[in-house]
Amino acid sequence: MTQIFDNPADFAEEALDGLVAANRGYVARVDGGVVRSTEVPAGQVAVVVGGGSGHYPAFAGLVGPGLAAGAVCGNIFTSPSAGQAYRVAKAANAGGGVLFSFGNYAGDVIHFGEAQQRLNAEGIETRTVLVTDDIASAPLDQIEKRRGIAGDLTVFKIAGAAAEAGLDLDGVERLAVLANHRTRSLGVAFDGCTLPGAAEPLFHVPAGGMSLGLGIHGEPGISDHPMPTASELAELLVSGLLRDKPDDAGSRVVAILNGLGRVKYEELFLLFGKIDKLLTAAGLTIVEPECGELVTSLDMSGLSLTLLWLDDELERYWTAPADSPGYRKGSMAPRARREVAAPEGALAAEGEDTTAAAAGLGRLAAAVLAQARDAVVDHERELGRLDAIAGDGDHGVGMRRGVDAAVAAAGEAVGAGLSVHRVLTAAGEAWSERAGGTSGALWGSALAAAGRALGNKDSYSGGDAAAAVTAFADAVTTLGKADVGDKTMVDALLPFRNAFVAAFDGGTPVTGALASAVTAARQAADATASLRPLKGRARPLAEKSLGHPDPGAVSFALIATRVSDYFESSPPLSSPMAAVAAGQGAQA
Amino acid sequence: MTQIFDNPADFAEEALDGLVAANRGYVARVDGGVVRSTEVPAGQVAVVVGGGSGHYPAFAGLVGPGLAAGAVCGNIFTSPSAGQAYRVAKAANAGGGVLFSFGNYAGDVIHFGEAQQRLNAEGIETRTVLVTDDIASAPLDQIEKRRGIAGDLTVFKIAGAAAEAGLDLDGVERLAVLANHRTRSLGVAFDGCTLPGAAEPLFHVPAGGMSLGLGIHGEPGISDHPMPTASELAELLVSGLLRDKPDDAGSRVVAILNGLGRVKYEELFLLFGKIDKLLTAAGLTIVEPECGELVTSLDMSGLSLTLLWLDDELERYWTAPADSPGYRKGSMAPRARREVAAPEGALAAEGEDTTAAAAGLGRLAAAVLAQARDAVVDHERELGRLDAIAGDGDHGVGMRRGVDAAVAAAGEAVGAGLSVHRVLTAAGEAWSERAGGTSGALWGSALAAAGRALGNKDSYSGGDAAAAVTAFADAVTTLGKADVGDKTMVDALLPFRNAFVAAFDGGTPVTGALASAVTAARQAADATASLRPLKGRARPLAEKSLGHPDPGAVSFALIATRVSDYFESSPPLSSPMAAVAAGQGAQA
Repeated sequence: MTQIFDNPADFAEEALDGLVAANRGYVARVDGGVVRSTEVPAGQVAVVVGGGSGHYPAFAGLVGPGLAAGAVCGNIFTSPSAGQAYRVAKAANAGGGVLFSFGNYAGDVIHFGEAQQRLNAEGIETRTVLVTDDIASAPLDQIEKRRGIAGDLTVFKIAGAAAEAGLDLDGVERLAVLANHRTRSLGVAFDGCTLPGAAEPLFHVPAGGMSLGLGIHGEPGISDHPMPTASELAELLVSGLLRDKPDDAGSRVVAILNGLGRVKYEELFLLFGKIDKLLTAAGLTIVEPECGELVTSLDMSGLSLTLLWLDDELERYWTAPADSPGYRKGSMAPRARREVAAPEGALAAEGEDTTAAAAGLGRLAAAVLAQARDAVVDHERELGRLDAIAGDGDHGVGMRRGVDAAVAAAGEAVGAGLSVHRVLTAAGEAWSERAGGTSGALWGSALAAAGRALGNKDSYSGGDAAAAVTAFADAVTTLGKADVGDKTMVDALLPFRNAFVAAFDGGTPVTGALASAVTAARQAADATASLRPLKGRARPLAEKSLGHPDPGAVSFALIATRVSDYFESSPPLSSPMAAVAAGQGAQA
Repeated sequence: MTQIFDNPADFAEEALDGLVAANRGYVARVDGGVVRSTEVPAGQVAVVVGGGSGHYPAFAGLVGPGLAAGAVCGNIFTSPSAGQAYRVAKAANAGGGVLFSFGNYAGDVIHFGEAQQRLNAEGIETRTVLVTDDIASAPLDQIEKRRGIAGDLTVFKIAGAAAEAGLDLDGVERLAVLANHRTRSLGVAFDGCTLPGAAEPLFHVPAGGMSLGLGIHGEPGISDHPMPTASELAELLVSGLLRDKPDDAGSRVVAILNGLGRVKYEELFLLFGKIDKLLTAAGLTIVEPECGELVTSLDMSGLSLTLLWLDDELERYWTAPADSPGYRKGSMAPRARREVAAPEGALAAEGEDTTAAAAGLGRLAAAVLAQARDAVVDHERELGRLDAIAGDGDHGVGMRRGVDAAVAAAGEAVGAGLSVHRVLTAAGEAWSERAGGTSGALWGSALAAAGRALGNKDSYSGGDAAAAVTAFADAVTTLGKADVGDKTMVDALLPFRNAFVAAFDGGTPVTGALASAVTAARQAADATASLRPLKGRARPLAEKSLGHPDPGAVSFALIATRVSDYFESSPPLSSPMAAVAAGQGAQA
């Protein structure tokens, strides 16, 4: 049970506040996460790590000299937003550029990727090294698809030590890539963890059994086993990793036996003793191993073994000192404290010479978002129930958080008289920021992309609506990398776009094209019930999901329906959008 | 569940081996525990900590520069033997004497106390500082009866830093006493832990509830509560500790929020954030707090808050660096590795000019021990079942381990032609060593005391038997500090001794006095069924124990019966004991 809290909704935020209160000598709170509270030499590369919360000491516990410069901290098991990653990186940057490193999960890739683009655009050179150590999550020939688990520690440690040694961004990136290339992990699970406020574990492993390779958020494993002896388990983990060792492996390895929460130290040590013997018997020399809780998953019962095959350079950085709240080794010279100032709220943009048409269209966009919010509010619980069948049940709540924030941000931009470009950009950033997770990132990016497509022009026509719809859809497919048939929002979105564009290109006015598109989207969303999920939230529980439509596809169709009804029932003729809404299709 | 093992019986031993394998740069294995594997300055006081296993990082994880010099590691939740404490202390001693420090539990007090006597007798000056921080375990006016929980860390840390700073034994002892005097803890439990191999938790807290002050091995708490919010829990812990603060408390405190196993870091941090605010509001300044798992109890769900009220001297030692497997702070200069040699097996004694009478009586003593073993073997399961009613069910197994070891050791001494003194001393040491726990210590000490009473004399009479019985009983009451009526072995033992001495003093021969004594012991053992336990194993579950006799009293009566039957049915007339057995009482 995760049961110590006042209000489960505030859990991650309050836990992070407490972590900082207990570790003021190490970390300071910034909007989106933490950075070191100690002096950082000017020009040092800032290794910024992160991901969802619930994995202590990953990620905020790994911030300190010789390790990370900052950690971006999302909600429990939810990727942080692009804005969070951007702001933490900006606060952590000491003039040497930023290396983002995090486990390879879709939401994190999207949000950190957006932050990276933004930092690079501002002249803060930023790179990303994904951790892909979990050999159970994809075969060796698809190593780039593997997810990151306790191998986070080897990659972060090597990168942090390289930064501490004064290497430049190229050098730190090269070593982080090398460390990830030579790191392999394999985990087992005995029971799931509970989210704060939940009455039941997030997932179960059958009692008395063990699931090999099951992910730390319940992602599916390779195979189920009866509970083995410690010797059998050591053999299973060691032989699995040795079969997958990198081509250029030497004979010196770091071994990390990581407990996920409920497997306690004595059990880990007992198992480590057997692993130590097996690795030694295999001709390997173990260098400064770790045995304890390093990348956890709340109170999950499980463990993983990680091996990092060293070369001389990696060994130097692995054995270098580090000093952070949750990971300390060697003798690190004391650092002076510094004052950490939160970076400027970076969402305030430069002035804009707003056209009347773009301001009017901005007002319409805000009204359309209000319709979207009403649709989400009406169906919030239904979406939650649908998501709970094969996911974590938070889709309704997440959409609500996102759309509420988007409506508020759009209202503020409209109040300032800004263009549709600025209204939708602000709405998208707010949605992504507040909702977190993959769907938050997708909706946020899609709105911003539609805004960019509409721009700040002197006049608009029906073609602009088609361009906005296309930009919206392209943003989702580009970021989310899902195809039709993967059982995601894309299954409703692409039929919507195709129907809209086909109708519009065939001469149908925008309102009519929208109605056709909605019909296509609703049918397509319903049809996802027959699909097995191949990507996104429902993949871990593919079989349970059969017979139920995808919540992301459903929520898109519901919103599209409400917006279409809005245009049909009360055409906003007084607005500049009237021309667009009533506008003829391209061939008309 | 504690489920990672090959054989539950080997759990503690194999876990310790693995801990050493994972921490070779810190600790080396010696018989009975671990000592530092790094150089220790000659003359430095050796702070030796210890207790049962299952509490990592206590105790073996707290060995390193600036902290403990060695840790004595008993079986899971079982005190180590006197021999273990003796051998670890001897290996840890660097010529500056030994400070034993451990939580105030009966078995530990007995075993470390014996080791202390032995070390002092050998010229290694040894002191003991008990940790008594748990305010729930006794009222303030009985502070010396309080048990030790996470306050172990403050006392060990202060003592270790003082030793590292070069203070002598007086100085280190003084600071450890001061730290204990100014340390208070209060804990809560949400659920019990499982022992390796057990299907059920050692104890339960009603689901959805919280027990305030419940001990880390299930010892009873103060009160039961519904699950509170984090804010309520913080208030409960802080106000409880502040009400109990030492008279000379200042305004600077160390705060330690300790997780017992299943309450995870994020929950601890969230709670710590609230505690931090309450302590600050109470006008206290928090100095280098700790929030994490420091003194655990396998996978127990619970936590405790510890406060140490600092003065300048304590603050200096609290903030000093330390470097151990499970606790590291500050910048500790690297230490050279050293070779650790196991100390000589100290049980091998100097030569003895054994008399024929003492050798003959030694053979009889070994034969009597063999009878005791048969009695234990016949009733091992019954004793286990009886102990399981209100204890941990290991009395049968523990007695079996002890008596087997005693019989083997006695046989070896008889084979070497040694005196009854040496035979019983060897048997007693082996019993204590192998059985562990309180009853192992009591039986071991009692046998050795009887051996000392019998000595290596030229002839023996009935008076020697009475002296041996008296010495046996005195050893148990002196070490165990239990009185008649406390529901322990003493309830059968003292009636036995009294009946024996009364009959013998009244002129009854030894065999007859033994028979009378056995009758008294059996009746007294049966009568313990009506008692509520006030001491020892059954105290935590006093009500459940009502109606069932005390297992320690029963096992004593069973052994006494078998030995009496042995003398009655086959009087060992061919041995020198014949004169004793047939000897008249003192007044005959």
